[in-house]
Amino acid sequence: MPAELRDPSRAPSSSGPSIEGFAAVVPAGGTGTRLWPLSRAGAPKFLHDLAGTGRTLLQGTVDRMEPLCGAERLLLVTGRAHEEAVRAQLPGLTDRNLVLEPSPRDSMAAIGLAAAVLARREGDDVVVGSFAADHLIVDAPGEETFAEVVRQAVVTARTGPVVTIGITPTWAATGFGYVEAGEPLAVEGAPLASRVTSFVEKPDAGTAADYLASGRYRWNAGMFVARAGVLLQHLAQQAPALADGLDRIAAAWDTTARDEVLDATWTTLLKIAIDHAIAEPVAAAGGVAVVPGAVGWDDVGDWDSLAALLHAARGLEPGSTAVVGDAATVRAVEGSSGLVVAGGGRAISVVGVPDAVVVDTPDALLVTTRGHAQHLKDVVGGWRAAGRTDLL
Amino acid sequence: MPAELRDPSRAPSSSGPSIEGFAAVVPAGGTGTRLWPLSRAGAPKFLHDLAGTGRTLLQGTVDRMEPLCGAERLLLVTGRAHEEAVRAQLPGLTDRNLVLEPSPRDSMAAIGLAAAVLARREGDDVVVGSFAADHLIVDAPGEETFAEVVRQAVVTARTGPVVTIGITPTWAATGFGYVEAGEPLAVEGAPLASRVTSFVEKPDAGTAADYLASGRYRWNAGMFVARAGVLLQHLAQQAPALADGLDRIAAAWDTTARDEVLDATWTTLLKIAIDHAIAEPVAAAGGVAVVPGAVGWDDVGDWDSLAALLHAARGLEPGSTAVVGDAATVRAVEGSSGLVVAGGGRAISVVGVPDAVVVDTPDALLVTTRGHAQHLKDVVGGWRAAGRTDLL
Repeated sequence: MPAELRDPSRAPSSSGPSIEGFAAVVPAGGTGTRLWPLSRAGAPKFLHDLAGTGRTLLQGTVDRMEPLCGAERLLLVTGRAHEEAVRAQLPGLTDRNLVLEPSPRDSMAAIGLAAAVLARREGDDVVVGSFAADHLIVDAPGEETFAEVVRQAVVTARTGPVVTIGITPTWAATGFGYVEAGEPLAVEGAPLASRVTSFVEKPDAGTAADYLASGRYRWNAGMFVARAGVLLQHLAQQAPALADGLDRIAAAWDTTARDEVLDATWTTLLKIAIDHAIAEPVAAAGGVAVVPGAVGWDDVGDWDSLAALLHAARGLEPGSTAVVGDAATVRAVEGSSGLVVAGGGRAISVVGVPDAVVVDTPDALLVTTRGHAQHLKDVVGGWRAAGRTDLL
Repeated sequence: MPAELRDPSRAPSSSGPSIEGFAAVVPAGGTGTRLWPLSRAGAPKFLHDLAGTGRTLLQGTVDRMEPLCGAERLLLVTGRAHEEAVRAQLPGLTDRNLVLEPSPRDSMAAIGLAAAVLARREGDDVVVGSFAADHLIVDAPGEETFAEVVRQAVVTARTGPVVTIGITPTWAATGFGYVEAGEPLAVEGAPLASRVTSFVEKPDAGTAADYLASGRYRWNAGMFVARAGVLLQHLAQQAPALADGLDRIAAAWDTTARDEVLDATWTTLLKIAIDHAIAEPVAAAGGVAVVPGAVGWDDVGDWDSLAALLHAARGLEPGSTAVVGDAATVRAVEGSSGLVVAGGGRAISVVGVPDAVVVDTPDALLVTTRGHAQHLKDVVGGWRAAGRTDLL
C-alpha cells in the first residue's frame, strides 16, 4: 500500500478514503506562456507555489484529493519529462500512482488512459474524477466544502451520468467557459445535482453578466466525474479508435509490456480535449449532470488573474502589491500596486508603477502591467526567435 | 615618468601634454541614491559605464584629460575605500597620481589638497583645473572642442582669475545651477572668456527659459581652472583654517610623514563645497571668468537624465528603449520605452510599460518610471531601515 502522498504534517492522517469507490485522476500538464517566465517548459505552472502557501499547485491538488480517494486510488498523469520534479515534490508517490505520457496528447488521452487503467484495476464501477494539478481551490466560508461537492458528484455519477463540478460564479468572468444547469436530478444523497443543458464557450462581457444574473450558469472548471465504464463507453461511441488504443495500452499497463505498447500506440492517438470528445456531445444527448460548488476556484490563467486572486485571498487594498515569495525582499512604494513574484533571491524595489507585474527569476525578468498580462506570447516568441530556448 | 593612464588603444599616443603648465584634478567621489541600485557606496557612479561606451565615467574622464595635462600632472582624488577599484580601472596610475582621502570632506578639501600638492611639486604658477570623474562630455559637431575650451580657460587663468567652464545650455534645464557671463575679457588666445557676474542656483522653469533666451547664462558644470597660487590665496582669505590644514598636509605629502599628518589633520578640516568657499565670493568681487563651451555635457544626475542623454546620443525615437549593457539580453515591446540597465546578466522583458526605468543588478532590481527618478530616496531609506545595508 502506498505511503501517504501528501505532506503528513499538514492534515490529520485519515484512516482511509472518505469517498468509497472513488479514484482521482490528476492531469499535470500544460505549459503555455501566460505565466512566463516563472512557468517554463521544464517547470510548468503546476510545479510552482503560485499562491505563496508553501505548497505548489500540484502538492495542493494532491493534499486536497488524497483524503477523498485514498493514496491507492490517486493517479497522476504527467509527461515523462516532469517525472523527476513530480517525484521530488511528492516523495510518497509510487509507480502505481504515476501515468507518464511519452508526449502531450491532450486531455482525453490523458484522462482516458487513467480511467482505462483504473477500470482494469478496480472494475468498471469505480468512479473516476479528473482534477487538474494547476488550479487553486479554497473552501468558501458558510458554503458547502469542496469535499462535499465531490462527494455529491460521485454519488450522482454512480447513477449513470457524466458529472461535472460547476463553480458558482462570483463575478461576470469572460475568461472561463460556462455550464448551463437545467432541471434538478433529485439524486438521493446529492441534492445539488442538476442535468446539464449545455456547455458554452467563454462569453463576451454582456453575456457573462446575463449568465451571472440568471443564476443558471456555472464556471466550467474542467472537473469531470463518472463511472470508469460509463466514461469509456462514451469514448468508444465518440472516438472508437482512441478508445481502442487506450484499451490496448491499459491492458499492458500493469505488465512488463507497458512501455512497448505505450510507445507503439501513443503517437497514433487522437489529440482531443475531453470537453469536445465527451462532455459536449454527451451533454447534448442529456447525459451530463452538474453539481454546483460555491467554492473559491481559479485556474490561475495569467498574471492578472493571479494578482486578483491574491488580492482577494489576502484582503489587500486595490492600491497595494501582492508578493509571491519572500515579502521582506520587496518594497513597492510611491503608488505602486499589482503583483511581484520574488523568485530570483534579489531585493526588488518598485517605485511609482501602478498595476505592475514584476516576475523575477534567476535567469529571466519580466516587467509588465496587469493590463498586458495577455500579451506575453510575442515577447516569448521573440526570445525563441533569438535562439534563447533556455528561457522557454 | 608614469605610463599612460588611459587605454593606449583608444587614442594615438601623444608625445606630451597639449597644454603646457596645466594640471588636472579629478575628484572621484559622491555616492548619493539617485542612480541606485547601480551606484552604491562601494561602487559609486564614476566606476560605471553608464553611457555604454565600454569605458566607465572615470576612465572616460582620464581619457579626456590626460592628453591635455600629461600623465604626470593628473591627480585623482578619491576615497581610500575606492583605491582598489580605481587602480583596477586605471592600471597605469602611480602613487603620484593618487590623492586618497581618509573620508569624504566635500569638494573644497579635495580640490584644495590636490592644488596644494601640485603647487609644492610644480610651483604656484601651475594652472590647476578640476574636472569631476562622473560627468559625461562629448564634443558637439561644428563647435569648438572640449580641449580647445580647456585651453582657453588655462590661458585665461594664467592672467589671474579663477576660471569656470560654463556649458552653453541647449534647453531650459531646471536641474543645474547657472553662471551669468558679463563683459568679454579680451584675453589674448582666449577669445571666449568673459567675466562672471554671478553664480545662480537651480532656477524654476520660467527663470530657466529666461536664462536660455537671454544667451548670457551657462550651466555650472563645476569645472574650475586657476593658478594653484591664486586658488590657495583665495582659500587663505575665505577659509584660513582650511587653507592652513591643507598646507600642512601638502608639506608632508611627498614625505614619509604623509599618512600621519593626513590622519591627524583631515577630520579637522571644514566641510564645504568649492562653489561656496571660493567661486561665489570671488565672483562677487569680480575675480571669476567664464569660458563658455558648446560641448555636450551631462552630470548624469538620475535615471531620467541618463535616459534622455542616451536617447539623444543614439538618436533613438522617444517611444524606444535605451539599453545600458548587452542589448541582446533585453526585449522591450508593446509600447515600452525608457531605459533598461542590464547589469544582472539576465534576460529582461519589458511589456507595455511606457517611460520605464528598469535597473537590474546581481542583488537588487529597481522598476520605476522616468517620472519617478527623483523619488528613490525613500525606497533606499526603506532598505536601510530594514537592515539591508548590503544593498546601499
